[in-house]
Amino acid sequence: MATDSNKFQAIISHCKEYGFIFQSSEIYDGLSAVYDYGQNGSELKKNIRDYWWKSMTQMHENIVGIDAAIFMHPTTWKASGHVDNFSDPMIDNKDSQKRYRVDHLIEAHVETLPKEEGDKLLAKMDQLLAKEDFGGLKQLIEDSKIKCTVSGTSNWTDVRQFNLMFSTQLGSVSEEASEIYLRPETAQGIFVNFLNVQKTGRLRIPFGIAQVGKAFRNEIVARQFIFRMREFEQMEMQFFIRPGTQKEWYEYWKAERMKWHLSLGIPAERYRFHDHVKLAHYADAACDIEYDFPIGFKEVEGIHSRTDFDLRNHQEYSKKKMQYFDNDLDESGKPYGNYIPYVIETSIGLDRTVMMVLSQAFEEEDLSTEGKPDSRVILKFPPRIAPVKLAILPLVKKDGLPEIARELMNECKTAFRCFYEEKDAIGKRYRRQDAIGTPFCVTIDHQTKEDGTVTIRYRDSMKQERISLKAVKELVDKAIL
Amino acid sequence: MATDSNKFQAIISHCKEYGFIFQSSEIYDGLSAVYDYGQNGSELKKNIRDYWWKSMTQMHENIVGIDAAIFMHPTTWKASGHVDNFSDPMIDNKDSQKRYRVDHLIEAHVETLPKEEGDKLLAKMDQLLAKEDFGGLKQLIEDSKIKCTVSGTSNWTDVRQFNLMFSTQLGSVSEEASEIYLRPETAQGIFVNFLNVQKTGRLRIPFGIAQVGKAFRNEIVARQFIFRMREFEQMEMQFFIRPGTQKEWYEYWKAERMKWHLSLGIPAERYRFHDHVKLAHYADAACDIEYDFPIGFKEVEGIHSRTDFDLRNHQEYSKKKMQYFDNDLDESGKPYGNYIPYVIETSIGLDRTVMMVLSQAFEEEDLSTEGKPDSRVILKFPPRIAPVKLAILPLVKKDGLPEIARELMNECKTAFRCFYEEKDAIGKRYRRQDAIGTPFCVTIDHQTKEDGTVTIRYRDSMKQERISLKAVKELVDKAIL
Repeated sequence: MATDSNKFQAIISHCKEYGFIFQSSEIYDGLSAVYDYGQNGSELKKNIRDYWWKSMTQMHENIVGIDAAIFMHPTTWKASGHVDNFSDPMIDNKDSQKRYRVDHLIEAHVETLPKEEGDKLLAKMDQLLAKEDFGGLKQLIEDSKIKCTVSGTSNWTDVRQFNLMFSTQLGSVSEEASEIYLRPETAQGIFVNFLNVQKTGRLRIPFGIAQVGKAFRNEIVARQFIFRMREFEQMEMQFFIRPGTQKEWYEYWKAERMKWHLSLGIPAERYRFHDHVKLAHYADAACDIEYDFPIGFKEVEGIHSRTDFDLRNHQEYSKKKMQYFDNDLDESGKPYGNYIPYVIETSIGLDRTVMMVLSQAFEEEDLSTEGKPDSRVILKFPPRIAPVKLAILPLVKKDGLPEIARELMNECKTAFRCFYEEKDAIGKRYRRQDAIGTPFCVTIDHQTKEDGTVTIRYRDSMKQERISLKAVKELVDKAIL
Repeated sequence: MATDSNKFQAIISHCKEYGFIFQSSEIYDGLSAVYDYGQNGSELKKNIRDYWWKSMTQMHENIVGIDAAIFMHPTTWKASGHVDNFSDPMIDNKDSQKRYRVDHLIEAHVETLPKEEGDKLLAKMDQLLAKEDFGGLKQLIEDSKIKCTVSGTSNWTDVRQFNLMFSTQLGSVSEEASEIYLRPETAQGIFVNFLNVQKTGRLRIPFGIAQVGKAFRNEIVARQFIFRMREFEQMEMQFFIRPGTQKEWYEYWKAERMKWHLSLGIPAERYRFHDHVKLAHYADAACDIEYDFPIGFKEVEGIHSRTDFDLRNHQEYSKKKMQYFDNDLDESGKPYGNYIPYVIETSIGLDRTVMMVLSQAFEEEDLSTEGKPDSRVILKFPPRIAPVKLAILPLVKKDGLPEIARELMNECKTAFRCFYEEKDAIGKRYRRQDAIGTPFCVTIDHQTKEDGTVTIRYRDSMKQERISLKAVKELVDKAIL
């Protein structure tokens, strides 16, 4: 499907205008690739996070949650391979001092070339990147006469690796201070706690440990709104299994996670699986669940068969046995005994899921009738994750209508998030609720005083009907189950 | 009340043994003053966080939430005063290179002195600290002949300020990289977003903005378990008001927050207010809510009248007007017009609240009867914040009892967190649930098959009674409202 950058821009503007997402520190002209969630965005994000957490932990007897710190012992990242492998090759121009990511520099040059020549260059680059042949990459840049856009020269340094982890100094006393990293993924917090959780929770394989939390990557090119941020939130689950069973569990979790995505009310044709051809150093199988964003199909979630790579490495670096004793019996009737479990990981980006849900929900509807142009912007969130569930609107600010509305407010607000408003024309108030995705509006009018009914107005259909005031709470309760 | 370090140690051990709190990166011998929440601790913490969030936002029409990033533009911390003021005076011994916090160095020395002499020295130190007289402090250390414990000499550097903020480098390209800080408080994320939220949310004064999130402080002496950590979680609310009304709103929020604390089921005598005598640079009134921990009365929450200090400074540094137009009428009938709002802040430590709730809930009960010693450890959490609400326990693993138990599990687990277990003696299973604070256990036995009743067992009283299987869910639902 073609990309739709107009729609993408419209969503970004809408997010700002209606309190979903602001650029971080905007009054100081922003901080690149960092965003803040406003009054509606923070509720949307929390609702998605809670829905994932409940789906993964509360609904699965054999999955528990943890909440590990962002700061971890630095050896963690040696064991995980991040100190050595979590980097991009970079090159500096000696005259301008400007630094480029090698692949971006070459790709930019390719755009100036005839297609055939460009494709050849890209293929060559991919080969050299795969072999980590940095000398060859430098040679390729020089042979292609690629110039720095600032200095205009081809006076390049060697190609070097640049690590994407943020570092900071822990401890105040100079000789005790140590360099630590902000975690680039939440997964390692699960691995280093594997034995603690398994033993204190008396868990038996297969079982999972889930976690939601911030992770940080010093992205060279951070862009596309909240799609690639330097500070972001991950929802990860590591599922510990018997070695040899990874193929079936990998397929199981692919199916389970797709079910979850469909449960957001998003049709199947908006998703696709993308199998990784080049596997990460820790994986024996991996795929992404991609969603059809306005900027094209992009990864939202990854499902990875991580083997015993992480636990085995932590065992090696920590000298602590990362083993599980399995007293289930194998085919010969003997217990499986001690082993380092294999792991299937499901890793979903919370911010990307917010963006997916926004992309799916956003619609500009033409409501024009003959001779009367009209339109509305609407966010068709599933009620369960909508920031506000119910708007309570007295038609006028007098005649006892606000008092009735307040009573309903008091009844409902302990159960779900309500919004109360008594100013402006009712049509205007409805449209504002459409724009933040409130599924239900209830209007209290003079008839309410006579027969105890209210007008309920449905966001998506704009249909209105009269129902009993007493029936409102239950109607909303059922819709958000 | 006297401190009870035995109880404190017992709680720490219990937290580890039952999957509440582990030391961070324990397999690598830990990271100082950083902790991870295990399978039960993460649920407890989440429940408290959600309860606070709901109390503050959903239950207050005029308070909305946001979720701002940990990374902020560095000028934020100039404006807030943290770059200049958020530091402790330190001194280095030139021979050993060891660095000391000045007050700790002097306090340690005082403990070796006769009481009267020590008190005099402490009083002198407090005077010099208040005046930020660093030359005087150095003189005091030299005059008192205080020696470094490592080198044994009195060869001291000058006293210097050491900033408690963690810093890191944002951006990959060397000349573009800038030093940024990990936020030492969440409050500034609210202040810099004040206008965005007020305008897009069409909010009218008085209104509040709430936020929960991680903050980081490079504490010199981090200790007392999760009480003072280098990475911790704050729950803050900034309430924006008309200048001149701060006294009444300060009192209002003191009362409101104390009500919240009491709603945790903790008796009033375990709390006290502690008024700040020495006010922070931004405050015109401030107090703490202290709880009577096993280690004595300690701050859990602060309520601060922050004046317009923060917004005024952000206006000055950003050159963006941080004003609100108030069209309410004053006594003379004119609109109040433009002003920079004043702020009342409520700031509660989530980790400290977890520790408070654990301290209050933890009990070692002697259940000995004549000739038969017995005891249990129990966590008497309010059902609303207990990690597990209901344990479902078939008496035996046969005769169709697990099937009935599973049916109940399926009915209940969508509504609240349940735990299923079919092994071990029932008494043993009850005790394990006591130890993690599960308020209700239900046992399915052979009588269940006959008359549809189950045994419900109450955690605190250990009372057991038979109720209808069908009544279980509603009973728990009501208890956790």
